This record gives sequence, structure tokens and C-alpha cells, in this order.
Amino acid sequence: MIVLGSTGSIGKNALSLAWEYGLSVTALACASNYKLLNTQIKDFAPKLVFIKDKKLAKNVNHSRVFCGDIREFLRACANECDSSKTTLINALVGFGGLVPSKLAGELGFNLALANKESLVAGGAFLDTTKITPIDSEHFGLKFLLTSKLAEPKKLIITASGGAVVDIKSPKKIASLSPKKALKHPNWNMGAKITIDSASMANKLFEVLEAYHLYGIKNIDALIERTSKVHAIVSFDDGSSTAHISLPDMRLAIAHALSLAGNSRIPSQTKQVLPDFDFLGAKFAFEKISLKKYPIFSLKNEVLKKPKSGVIINAANDVMVARFLAGKCAFGDIAKNILKIYEKYNNIDISSFEDVLEADLMIRKVLK
Amino acid sequence: MIVLGSTGSIGKNALSLAWEYGLSVTALACASNYKLLNTQIKDFAPKLVFIKDKKLAKNVNHSRVFCGDIREFLRACANECDSSKTTLINALVGFGGLVPSKLAGELGFNLALANKESLVAGGAFLDTTKITPIDSEHFGLKFLLTSKLAEPKKLIITASGGAVVDIKSPKKIASLSPKKALKHPNWNMGAKITIDSASMANKLFEVLEAYHLYGIKNIDALIERTSKVHAIVSFDDGSSTAHISLPDMRLAIAHALSLAGNSRIPSQTKQVLPDFDFLGAKFAFEKISLKKYPIFSLKNEVLKKPKSGVIINAANDVMVARFLAGKCAFGDIAKNILKIYEKYNNIDISSFEDVLEADLMIRKVLK
Repeated sequence: MIVLGSTGSIGKNALSLAWEYGLSVTALACASNYKLLNTQIKDFAPKLVFIKDKKLAKNVNHSRVFCGDIREFLRACANECDSSKTTLINALVGFGGLVPSKLAGELGFNLALANKESLVAGGAFLDTTKITPIDSEHFGLKFLLTSKLAEPKKLIITASGGAVVDIKSPKKIASLSPKKALKHPNWNMGAKITIDSASMANKLFEVLEAYHLYGIKNIDALIERTSKVHAIVSFDDGSSTAHISLPDMRLAIAHALSLAGNSRIPSQTKQVLPDFDFLGAKFAFEKISLKKYPIFSLKNEVLKKPKSGVIINAANDVMVARFLAGKCAFGDIAKNILKIYEKYNNIDISSFEDVLEADLMIRKVLK
Repeated sequence: MIVLGSTGSIGKNALSLAWEYGLSVTALACASNYKLLNTQIKDFAPKLVFIKDKKLAKNVNHSRVFCGDIREFLRACANECDSSKTTLINALVGFGGLVPSKLAGELGFNLALANKESLVAGGAFLDTTKITPIDSEHFGLKFLLTSKLAEPKKLIITASGGAVVDIKSPKKIASLSPKKALKHPNWNMGAKITIDSASMANKLFEVLEAYHLYGIKNIDALIERTSKVHAIVSFDDGSSTAHISLPDMRLAIAHALSLAGNSRIPSQTKQVLPDFDFLGAKFAFEKISLKKYPIFSLKNEVLKKPKSGVIINAANDVMVARFLAGKCAFGDIAKNILKIYEKYNNIDISSFEDVLEADLMIRKVLK
């Protein structure tokens, strides 16, 4: 396997599974955390490594360190292994993960995708049939969609509601401090995605990803506060099924690595997560209030125009960075995204290059 | 299709589906309700009919009325159609449904089974691979077990808790009147099964049925008060899935008749039940208290000795009839079943004939 973003939360989980199951690691890539990268090099002896920040390359203890442009690194990875038998985990953060996803597909890797921007911004131009999602909601949908007794009709993914789930006043939410917005009730994740949870941008993106992955446009999201019911599929006979597990990314990662469900692995080691105990479990499904989460009002819009994902993603990126830097209010994130979307949703995006251009353009506009 | 028990709740639902989908009905059988049978004869023009009560045969408006022994009738049915292409719905009530199930299998019919006693008492001696269950819980399990991403590890079926779900005192429950015990919170069913819901005998039987149908011994039941979550499967990776729908038997019946999920049927007519609306839905899973439902304390016992189902079933039959006749207390049902089970669980049951004998013996003992 190859891990892009090896020092982040998904990357670390993936490597801990590689350790447990004795998987070989061909290559590792990270942005700047060379200290952890060095430890991972010791533990997994990858053939080549990548660090984005050129100035830090000298601190990496490896004979083959790539830096700067990740494309060169990926081509070198393809020369080191049989890409058709290698899982490439793309756990890069941000829009920068899109080009590696595209190239990974072209190089024939099995793409295990945790980078959200790849599908949100570029889903229309990626071969999604070869992508395994690393995401509780999309893994849940995959698990549920394998049932063949009826035809899937509607997909529902769940949201925790993020840091603002218990705040009733939309006004209070709009003036939330970064410190409060960063308190996610169930998951311990990076700052950007935690803010995206609080604003519901994350769920808007996941809806769009689900469309690209499964080709169904009838998608909704509901709040389920425990983050234990990940996804629901409604079938054309009136049946619905739900996927439930403890909230732990290792499950989706293990499936992306074909560890769970692999008949060659003894069942006692296949158990990725502890059994879910239903005794005493309580689940309730609540509407996502558009007053509290105005970004989610774009849900039906983006399903009509999936290519506009890049616009929203770029605007969100800029605004979240601005908010985290203390330079705008929480409410400004949604406000500006809605404005930008209204103005630019009709621009022509008909190629992968257009996606990259649109991204740059939106970032420039918002500067 | 052939419907045994055509005038009961399952039978009527099955015929309403036959009407909607234009299925041909080869034969109908009922115990005594000749008035409704005559209406059904007019509507569906079956080739032959059966009424159990000989004295009522003269009231049935049909040229080929069988009565008394149902086996002769079933053999005549097999002569009238290609049994391998005919679904025989066994919705007979009680132990009398077992012999028809056995014979239906031998005659090559596709057995759609709503008669609980067939599996509870005779499951060890029926070819369960050819049985489609008509039961929300078992249909739910079937729906869930078709997922192939991981191996099923545990089955959980749900119970409403029956008429006593909100009564806390075991003493009060033990002295419940038939009138109160007949008030089921969610399902409108016959008297016997409604009492079995209140005593949890029904869930004990369903656990045993699930074992016979799916070959998994790790089975439990939990109370889910809305009767909308029917079944849960826990997999060896830590995933669980749940089957959810409105509480309506038409779904399981439609699947047994291959109506739902049949690709030849246009999807707009395939929708057996309305979409389940998750917005505002709340599910909670509670332990089945053995103080309130002492019969359920036999759960692990019957899973260890599945052939002992006939003992419990016969004892339960006698005791429920006695209770409904006002001749014993509600609490006596469980008391006597536990006593009988303790005394007779070790008797040798090694053939189908032994099952019939054991049934007779227990009924005699309890007379």
C-alpha cells in the first residue's frame, strides 16, 4: 500500500492496520511532519517517501526523498510496484488531493479515497468505479447497497450536527468563536473538517460524493447525534436498511484495504471494531435546520449541478481559513459561499482543467 | 399460488396482493369461514378448495371441495399445477400447519411459510433451504444477510413487548386478564399470537425459527417498541445492519411471492409499502426482562436443543387456550411451560414422527 497523508488521522489509522495485518508499505507522503514521518520510515521501511515542504526534505531519514510536486513521486511509486495490486490511500487534506487522485487512477492504482475534495470538485472527471471510499457514510452506503432483494431508491447519510447541534439560535451560531466551533461531539478530526461539520458543509460535500460514487440523485441527510448510524438506504419495495457501528474510521479503512471480509484472514483477527452493543442504544433522526445550517440549503442545487462542487469547495476553503484566523465570523462562511455560488454556479466546467481553473478563480475572487 | 389459511390475516393480505398483481390462484384452504371463502372463490376462481370442517362443506360454492384431511387436498393441488413454479403459502394457524409444510416440500412446492409451528416444532426435519419466511423479522434477516462485505456473526430480532410492555410489575403481569393481554400495541393479529407476543413466547419461537432458517446460533432479541426495526445482523468486522419498514405483513408476503425486487414488474407498482420516513423517527433498544417475560429465559436452552421446540410449542398451545378460556392466570402460561420443559426436554426426538408423538404426549400430560 501507499499512503498519501501518512501523518494525519486517517494515515495513522491506516498504518496501524498495516502493522496489525503485516501489510507491506511501498511509499509514504506527508506535508511537513517530518518527525512522525521518520518514525513511520523506521517502522515500515517504505521504498520512497515524499514531503511537500522542500525545506524539510533534509530532515527526512531516507535515501529516496521526493518533495515539491507530488506527481513525480506518484510516477516513481508506479515504477516500484504493480499498481493494479496496490492500494493507494489518498488521505491528503484539501483541493491539493484532486490531482493525485486523477493521476492515481491513470497510473492504475486502486484508489482508497479519504480526500473529499477529489469527488466534490472533480467527481465528474474521475473514474469512480475504481474508487473505494474511506468515510463512514460512504462505506455504510456501500455496505447497504450490496443487498440485492430490491432496488435502491434513496440514500440517506447522517450528520452529528457538529459543535452547534445543541445551540438553538441561528444568531448565536453565526457569531460562534473558532474555539467553540472546533468542539466536535463525536469525532476527533482536523480543524478544517471539524468546522465543516459545524457548518454542515461537510455533509453537503458528502451528499455530492455519494452521488458521484453511487449514481443516485435522491440523497438526503439527517441529524443522528450519536454518529453510530452512518447511512441508510431506502429501497423501492418500502424497505430501508441502516449501517451501524462504533464511530471509528478503522472500519472503512480496513475495508478499503480488503482486510475485513477477506476470507483468507482468520475471523478472529478480522474484527476491526468491537461488536456494537444494541442493548440500551437509542437513535433519533432529526431534520437539518436550514436556519442553523444555511450552507445545506445548496443540497438540491449541487445535486442538479454536480460540477459546481468546485465552486463551493474553493469558497469554503477560503472562508474557513479566514474564520480560523479570526478574520471573519462563523456566519460569514455560509453567507459568502451562498453569494459566490449564486454568482458563479453557471460558469462552464467541461474538463478536468476547467476544474483547476475554476478553483483558482474563486480563490482569487475571495482574496 | 396456493393459499392455506386464506381467510386469516396473512391469507387475506396475500390475496389482495394477488389481485393487485394479477396472479392466478390455484387453490384456497381455510378452517371454517365459508362465507369469506365463497367470496374469495368468486374473486379468484380457484380450481379446488378445502374447508377443514366437514359439516360446512355443503355451504361452499365450488364443484371441487375437499375437507377433513388436508394431505389429500395438497396432492390434488400438485396434480393441478407445476409445483416447482407454484408458491404455496402456508398461513395455517397452529401445530396443524406442520404436516402440510412437510408435504408441500415433498411435493416440490415453493413454500412461503407463515405458520410458525412448522419450524418451531419440526424445523430439524424440514428442508429449510426451500422455505421463504413470511414474517417481518425473518424477512428482515433475509434482506440483511444478503450483504456480502463481511460475515454475519449474530442475529438480533426485535419484539414490541406486547400488551405488557408498559406494565412494570411482574406480579401485575402474572394476573393480567385476557382482555388486556389481547391489546397489542402495533400489530392487529389473531388472539393466539397476540397472547404469544405478550408472553414473549412468540419471540422465543422466532429465535428458534431464525436458527432453522439461517443456521446461526448466536441469536438474541431486544425490545424495540415501534415495531419498525424488524431485525439486525451484526457482522464479524464490527458492522451491524438493520432492516426497517412500516409494520405491515404485505412486504414479507410480496417478497415470498417474488413481487418486490422482481425486475419484470415496473418499479412504480413494485412499491409494496410507502417509503419509510426517517425524519423524526426514534428507535430505542431495550432488554427483554426475564422477570416480566419468564418464557424468554428458555432462549439459550432452545438454541442448544432446537428439537425441543415441539415441547414448548405444545405446552404453550394448551396453556394459551386455557388462559383465553378464563381457566388460568396469565402467569400460569409461563409457569407450566417452564415446568414441562424441565421435565421433558430430554426426550428423544430423532424423526418427524417423533415430533408428532411428542406433541400429542405433551398435550395429554397437560390435559
